[in-house]
Order: sequence, then C-alpha cells, then structure tokens
Amino acid sequence: MKLEKLVGDRFKERPSDCQIDSHAIMVRGGYIKYVANGVFSSYMPLRRITKKIEQIIREEMDKIDGQEVQFPVVMPASLWEESGRYTSVGSELLRFTDRNGSKMLLGMTHEEAAVHLVREYGQSYSKYPFMIYQIQTKFRDEARPRGGLIRVREFTMKDAYSFHTSQEDLEQYYAKCHKAYENVYRRAGVPEVISVASDSGMMGGSISHEFMLLTPVGEDSIAICEECGYSANVEAAQCLYDGISTLENTELQKIHTPDKHTIEDVCEFLGSSPQKSVKAVVYQKNLDDRYVVVFIRGDLDVNETKLHNRLGEDFHPAVITEECGLHAGFIGPVGLDADCDVFYDRSLEGMHGLVCGANEDDYHYIGFSCARDADIKEYGDYAKISDGAVCPNCGKHSIKVSRGIEVGNIFQLGTKYTKTMNMTYLDANGESHYPIMGCYGIGVGRLAASVCEAHHDDYGPIWPMSIAPWQVHICAVRSDDSEVKQTADTLYEQLQNDNVEVMYDDRKVSAGVMFSDADLLGIPLRAVISPRNLKDGVVEISSRDKSISVKIPVAEAAAELKKLIAQMLDMYK
Amino acid sequence: MKLEKLVGDRFKERPSDCQIDSHAIMVRGGYIKYVANGVFSSYMPLRRITKKIEQIIREEMDKIDGQEVQFPVVMPASLWEESGRYTSVGSELLRFTDRNGSKMLLGMTHEEAAVHLVREYGQSYSKYPFMIYQIQTKFRDEARPRGGLIRVREFTMKDAYSFHTSQEDLEQYYAKCHKAYENVYRRAGVPEVISVASDSGMMGGSISHEFMLLTPVGEDSIAICEECGYSANVEAAQCLYDGISTLENTELQKIHTPDKHTIEDVCEFLGSSPQKSVKAVVYQKNLDDRYVVVFIRGDLDVNETKLHNRLGEDFHPAVITEECGLHAGFIGPVGLDADCDVFYDRSLEGMHGLVCGANEDDYHYIGFSCARDADIKEYGDYAKISDGAVCPNCGKHSIKVSRGIEVGNIFQLGTKYTKTMNMTYLDANGESHYPIMGCYGIGVGRLAASVCEAHHDDYGPIWPMSIAPWQVHICAVRSDDSEVKQTADTLYEQLQNDNVEVMYDDRKVSAGVMFSDADLLGIPLRAVISPRNLKDGVVEISSRDKSISVKIPVAEAAAELKKLIAQMLDMYK
Repeated sequence: MKLEKLVGDRFKERPSDCQIDSHAIMVRGGYIKYVANGVFSSYMPLRRITKKIEQIIREEMDKIDGQEVQFPVVMPASLWEESGRYTSVGSELLRFTDRNGSKMLLGMTHEEAAVHLVREYGQSYSKYPFMIYQIQTKFRDEARPRGGLIRVREFTMKDAYSFHTSQEDLEQYYAKCHKAYENVYRRAGVPEVISVASDSGMMGGSISHEFMLLTPVGEDSIAICEECGYSANVEAAQCLYDGISTLENTELQKIHTPDKHTIEDVCEFLGSSPQKSVKAVVYQKNLDDRYVVVFIRGDLDVNETKLHNRLGEDFHPAVITEECGLHAGFIGPVGLDADCDVFYDRSLEGMHGLVCGANEDDYHYIGFSCARDADIKEYGDYAKISDGAVCPNCGKHSIKVSRGIEVGNIFQLGTKYTKTMNMTYLDANGESHYPIMGCYGIGVGRLAASVCEAHHDDYGPIWPMSIAPWQVHICAVRSDDSEVKQTADTLYEQLQNDNVEVMYDDRKVSAGVMFSDADLLGIPLRAVISPRNLKDGVVEISSRDKSISVKIPVAEAAAELKKLIAQMLDMYK
Repeated sequence: MKLEKLVGDRFKERPSDCQIDSHAIMVRGGYIKYVANGVFSSYMPLRRITKKIEQIIREEMDKIDGQEVQFPVVMPASLWEESGRYTSVGSELLRFTDRNGSKMLLGMTHEEAAVHLVREYGQSYSKYPFMIYQIQTKFRDEARPRGGLIRVREFTMKDAYSFHTSQEDLEQYYAKCHKAYENVYRRAGVPEVISVASDSGMMGGSISHEFMLLTPVGEDSIAICEECGYSANVEAAQCLYDGISTLENTELQKIHTPDKHTIEDVCEFLGSSPQKSVKAVVYQKNLDDRYVVVFIRGDLDVNETKLHNRLGEDFHPAVITEECGLHAGFIGPVGLDADCDVFYDRSLEGMHGLVCGANEDDYHYIGFSCARDADIKEYGDYAKISDGAVCPNCGKHSIKVSRGIEVGNIFQLGTKYTKTMNMTYLDANGESHYPIMGCYGIGVGRLAASVCEAHHDDYGPIWPMSIAPWQVHICAVRSDDSEVKQTADTLYEQLQNDNVEVMYDDRKVSAGVMFSDADLLGIPLRAVISPRNLKDGVVEISSRDKSISVKIPVAEAAAELKKLIAQMLDMYK
C-alpha cells in the first residue's frame, strides 16, 4: 500500500508519559492510540503484526492437536461461582449486572468456560486427552496499567486448556506445549525468551512456568543461576541457606537501645550486622485486620507471594496501633504476647547469637538462639531470593536476579476446576474420576510489544520478517523525478504481483522525513530509489537492522528482494 | 483430523427450545453451546467456519482499500458522551463502572471509537477518503435473544467506517461497499441475499441498506415489489395511496353505537368496512406519559419506527385512564379535547364518508370528511406497508411482504458523529469542515447461521465449499476390515499431504451413525470406503447436497476429490 494512505500519524518526539521504549515507539509510529487507562485502539501496522503472531500461535497449537474454539468475553457469574473464583478473585475481575439484573463478568481467563464446554463431552476416558484453545479479547481490571501494551486492561490472548486422565499424560502434554511455546517465540523473532518456574497464583495447581523476555524494563524479577541454568520467578524461587556457623552461641541479654527502630540503627548502635539480626515484618489480614508477624533474617525481604500462599488470603502492610501489644521497631520472638499469627522464615533455622527486638520499647536482645530461646514449631520459606543466594538446584551461591517481561505462562492445574465444577469421566473399569487439566496462555499484544522492546533502536522498531507489518518498504526519493517515479512504480507493481507485502512511499517529502517514517514502521527490507542511485542504474537495498546494504541493478531489484525475504523468513522457521 | 478426536457431541433429537432449524442444527451438530441468555461458546467446526467467513470479509474489505484496525470492546463512557449516545441509546447498551468507579461500556458499534482513532489524522483534506474496519467481539444487551446465533447478545462483527470530504465521494464509496457486500454473500454461499432500503434507527444518517436473506423464519419484514424489484424493510417502506374516490361525501352524523369498541364491531354494526373507518391508535411517551394519538385508515397498522422517527423519543402502548379525557374505543378527530399529541396518517388525506369515534362513550360519527370536519394541519407517513400496497417506485399495487434475516447493513451517516465529536479537516482553501461518514456492518456468526438456515435438510447443514469446516469427509465403513482401514488411511494421508482439509471417521461404529454424524457436519464432499465398494475396487464419492454421486477407482479417488474441491470453490469466487 501507499504510505500516503496509511491511517495514523508518525512523529519524532518521545511522549513524556511513555516510560519504556516500546510504548514510546508504538505511539510515535502510529501503532496504537490511548482510549482509556490500559485500553488502546490499534492502527493497521499493529493489527498486521498481531494477525501474524496469532497465525504463528494457531499453527503451533494446531500442531499439538489443539482445537480452536471460542468462549464468550461476557460470562454469567454463576459459572465462576461454580469454581469459587467469583468471590476468591479480587477486583481485577470486572463484575457487572445486565439489563435483567443478572450478575455477569468479563472473562480474564477461561478455565470455567473450558470445563463448561467439554463437561458432557468428556464423560468417557476414551475421549482423552484433548486440548481446546481460543484467541480472544480479555479484560483484567488492573490497578496499575503501564508500559503501553505491556500491562493493559483489555488484551487479546491465546488461552489453551488440556484435559487428561493421568498426571503422566498431563506432564507429557505439558512438555509438548512448552516446546510449542519455544517455537512461537523463536518464530516471532524472540528466541531469547527463557522459561522459568513460577508461582501458580490464583490459577491454582502446582507446577507452572513463565516465559520471560529478559530486559531491564520488565516488571517481573527472575532468579537465574549462572552456574547450572536454574531459573525461577523471584515470587516462586525457593530460598535455601547453608547456615552461618561462624556466630558465637552467646547468652541471651537484654540491651537498652533507645530510639533504635530500624535494623540499620540497631546494627550500628550494637556494632552488629543485618545478617546477624532478626527482622520482624508485620502485616494485617484484609478480612479481619488480624496481625501477622513474619520473623526473617535482617538482610532478607519477605516474599509476599509465598506468604500469601501460606495464608490463603489477602493482607496488607500493618498499621501498628498503641493498643495492639506490638512495639513497632522492637518486635522479637522472645515474650511476644500480642494476639497475632507468627511465622518464622527458614533463614533463621539453627541460628544463634542474633540481635532481636525485646517486645518492649527501646530494648533489644543480643545472643538470641532460635532453638534455645523461642518455641518455634515450624520454619517456612517466606524470603525473597536475591543476588548471590544459594541456587536451589546446584547449591552454589550463584543466583543472579534479572528483570523480565512475562510473555506467556503454562500451568499444571490438576483437578482444581474439574472437581469444583463436577466434571467427571468413567475409566475403563467404570469408575468415576476428575480429569486433570493444564492451561497455557500467551498475550498477543504484549508479545508484539516485547519483540519491539527487544529489537529496536533510537529510531524505531526492527521487526523480524516473520511478524513485520510489511516485508519491503520502497522509498522513492524525489518522486517528482519522472525516472524515479517510474522505476519505483514498476518495482512496486512487480513485488505486489509476486504477493510481496509492500509499503510504498512516493510522497513528495524530503529523504529525511521518508527515512524517519520508514524507521518508525520498522519494515525489515528497504529499497531506496533516488536520482543519484539511478545514475548508476541501481536500487539501494538495505535491512532495517543494518546487516544488509547493497546496490543492485534496477532490473534485478525485485528478484533480490524476494530472495532476501525468503532468507529472512527462513531464520524464523 | 479424526472424527474420534473432535470435541463436541452430536445427536439426533431436535432440542425442544430451538425455534428455528439453524439453531437446532448448531446444537445437534456440536457447533455451539449455550452459556447464558444470548451468549454461546463455539466448538471447532463453527470456529473454522467463522474464520473462513472472516477471511472472505477481510479480503473484500481490503480490496476496497479498507485498513484493518482494532478498537476496544470496553470503552470509556466519555467517548459515547461526546456523541450523545451514552444517554440516547437504551438499555441494550451495557454500562458499568470499573474498579475506580469510572463509567465504562461494552461496545455494540464503534462510530465513536472510529472518530476517536482518526480525529487527529484526518485534519487535512489530502488524507481523504479512507476506510478503517475491524473484526471484533461486540455486546448488545438484547431484551429477547432468540434463534441461536441469529439474535444474540455477544457476537463477532466486522464493522467498517469510511470518511469523506463530499457527499458524492461517500456515495461512490457506498456503492463500492455495496458491491463488496454482494461479493461477501456470494462467496459465503448465499448469493440470494438481497439489499433493501432500511431505516437508519439509532445510527443516525439518511440513506441506508440492509442485506436480507429471505426466509420465513426471519424476524424482519421486507416489502418487495413484484413488478419493479423495489425492496425496503417494512420499517422504512414508504406508504402511498391512490385515494378511494368511490365513497360518497355525506353529512356528518352522530350514531349511537353502544358497546362497539373495536373497528370490527363498529363496521359490522354500521354495515361499513375498516377501509372506510378512521382508527385511533394511542401511545404514551416514556419520558412523561403524555398521550400520542395516531389516526389512520381502519385497515392499516401503525409503523412504530416511523412514529418514533417523527417523535424523536421512546413511547409505549397507552394505558387509557378515566381521567385522561380519552374515550377508549370511541376516539375520533372531531371534538377531541384531551391533552395529547395528534398525528394523522397520509392514508386519510382527501378522504370523506368515513366512520370515526365521537369522543363520547357509545357514539360514533358517520360521514366524516377529513377536509371539512377536522382542522388537520399535516398528514404524515405512519402506516405499515402490507401485501397489495402501492409500490413507491412503480406505483402499482404490487407490494408483497416477506420475512428475512438481516445479514448486514450499510449506512450513510453524514456528519452526525464528526460534528458531535468535533472532528474537522481543512480543505484546499484552508476552510474547516466536518468529514462525512459511512459505516458498514456484517455479523459473522449470524451470517454462518443464515447460510445454515438457507442451506440445510432434515439431517444437517449443507455447507458451501467456501466456508465449510472441512472439505472432505472420509467414512471408513467397517474400519475393522484391514483393507478398508488401509485404503482409508492412505486416502487420508494423500489428501492431507495435498493440504486438503479432511475429516476422517475411522471409528468402529455402524454406517448409520457414521452417515448421520457426517450429515450433521455438512462437509461438502464425502468419500465412503467400505468392504462392498472395495470389492469393486472403488471409493464412493458424493456431495452433501446430493448433486454428485460417483464411484471412482481407489487409485483415482484423491485426484477426483481435489478436482471436485477446485470446482466447488470456483462456484464461490
């Protein structure tokens, strides 16, 4: 098509409200337009990209015997009441009533709809395994949409659901799907995406993986072992400790620490260090404001996801009142008599010689021994893994924490949904069981934005040929020159006749405007036809990533471009 | 794929809640599953059909320079407040608030979103004309969803919006789009769809057309002239009268008509006929309950759409109270002193010698003359056209009213949205104008259901090759016979290698079950491999519409099927 006719504006200035590059590029290049918080319209270039991504996903899902179906965006609350999620999911689930007062909701994921669709079909073991998927609009009422298409409220997602009669069968299929996801990312031009173990969150189930594009602007933190390759979302990464045997096992002794409320202050005052201290982190449960105290080694932070999984309910940072019996800044395991739930992080297990609060204003203990001085029934894993931590796989102090964008996730759900929604099948012996489920998601728009985030320069995106909005961008520099115009017109026609996807810029604008527009569209191949080139009888062909820059005789330009397209498409097969 | 693995159940019995055949077939054949009132999930066969329909639509829209974009499903109320439709549209517009209390809505059409997307882009005349479209989920909170996919609440629709700098340009484009729509219906296998003039309703604008599939189960009524081919939705069809000069112009005379409330009773009592009577039809405005009386010839009915367009507000059938001054059954133009709005239908213009109510219980007038006895300022067109009425085009009494399903509509919107939303462009002289818009919709699911409604038999749908879920259905009758199994397997493989879309039934079930399942899937070509056929060395190839039934040597079966597919695809080019 002609660039002159492309709906959407392109401009140079980075919008001030764009925190990350892909967001800025998508706005500057005429890909998206803001409609409401976390809600965007897409212009043609992005729609062409997302269609190609959708097609890649579809092909990979079909290859693993997925059957494309379609679930509704709007669902009756009753469906989610069956699974219990109508009440268990927070306000990110958008609930409303229809004209008849029926309770409805906007689908943010479709486990319930999937079980509903196949509940009757799947009554015999002989029907298993099977997988159904859809590519459909979803809405998640995010509290803080951000980063353009990275975290939105409305999005297009491929969500797939598999059904099995054994855990082994699920695991086999899960591995196939993991491979299919790798294929999707490779074909979409981001083979660098890695899979990491993750927390299953509100989805339920046990084993799950997230696919992460590592980038400093990502909002997820991922623990990666530089020795063995282990990787997990920080939310899910297990924390191990090899114990600090170097501390002396001294006597418990109460010390006056006036106005020393923070770990840092106390350590400085006592000449100790956070590693040798017990930190108390206090929350309150959302439901009844009951206090929850987590004791953890002073240099570590609480991983609230792990705590949430342990508590099974929502909580918030505590407001410590005078009446509650807690002495803010001086809370410790010894003599804590406030009415609260107490948890001990595994980092304290076997430790002694520690500093901790004395549950009395302006007093701490030194020489605290977990085994000797407190009645600790259980240690749990509530800590956030950090740089230099012990790798739970190889045991070395080799964990490095990186940032990443989650571009997909897969879950082994188990029977959470089939049980609550009473989906059963009869096995070969006529006995009734609940099918075992897996679910598998990829956000289409977020993947497009992630590719842009991973592959761009200051001037715009560098789209991989496999998902590029067009394959070739013809720039007719000085189209008022009749030879330029005629040569460019001919090339445009030749390429179109060969089903090449061509963007043709024959506007009467400067080469500068032309090239900066071309950079913003990020089309992988560019053909420049100008009076200067034509003097030498050539077309200048270059790639957006600058790896190719050749001058080709006019008559051979179309063939050369087609050859390059085929080569570049091959890279993403 | 193998039928054994196809998710979804098929069965013989017509579900009792299905009023129309396509609904029953879609349920019986495993195409859809009910989720909530007017909300369905689709199984794979329907999803494959809708994908093909979407692709046909896409190609036709691209051919007329449409640019595919994507608007949000969820929109902020503020956008619809700009156009005024946030309040003007009734409860079919689903409104709700998000977690922050912001007013939002579910898109049922996207004129506002379209203007929003191009408002900045379209500031110069040089950018015009252009057309943008999307294929996206929509939600319309219908009061009475019915007929399976015919009238639903959630649906996938292609909606297109064109922008122009002159009415002539709009009209040219409108004609192109009309042609594109004809192409879509032809290619989807329903060339019998006709276009009819329609009422623009809540869309605003003037000229509009609906595309109708004529069928007795349709919920729209269409007036078609059997002489000249004129056609219009009954809601929009203009009513003309050639006057009844045969009536005598007699004196106005009051007659005692005790307990004669209805036209029929009065006519019988007075020996008159409805054609010679004035009927009073009474409504009340929704807003303030004010009465509205429409006087119309006794044999005609009021077209409430026309009345709505005249009033510009909603109304409902009246509840006539004792105090209101109206005498139910005896209301007439003479001496009507109740506080109400009065409208006279054009059917009364120039008439005399009529019977009408006397605005007094148990009394009517005879000999009423519109010109002589009442002060009528204006006659309007408020009547519903009916069989035998005058064709507004050729003037003959040749109107026939048929039923139809609306499978698409196109509107000339004018400047309704650009004006209210303040979208302007500068012309070549630097003067500011509002662009002129057109909009163009096709419901994808409804089109699929309509094709099924138009082309089915008692056993299932007869899908056109162009949108069929698969192209060939192989039935291996007696797949326990090793020769049958091997022959069928080979044919399946051959066809798949040639990218033919094959459904393969090698289940160990009776031929009866196999064929009734095949009928329900409605795949255009069937290849039956059975011991009996193999004795003669042939495969039985037949078409679902029964026009083809041949026996082909096994070795030639694949080639024959491919030839037939190509021929059948050609029919819909």
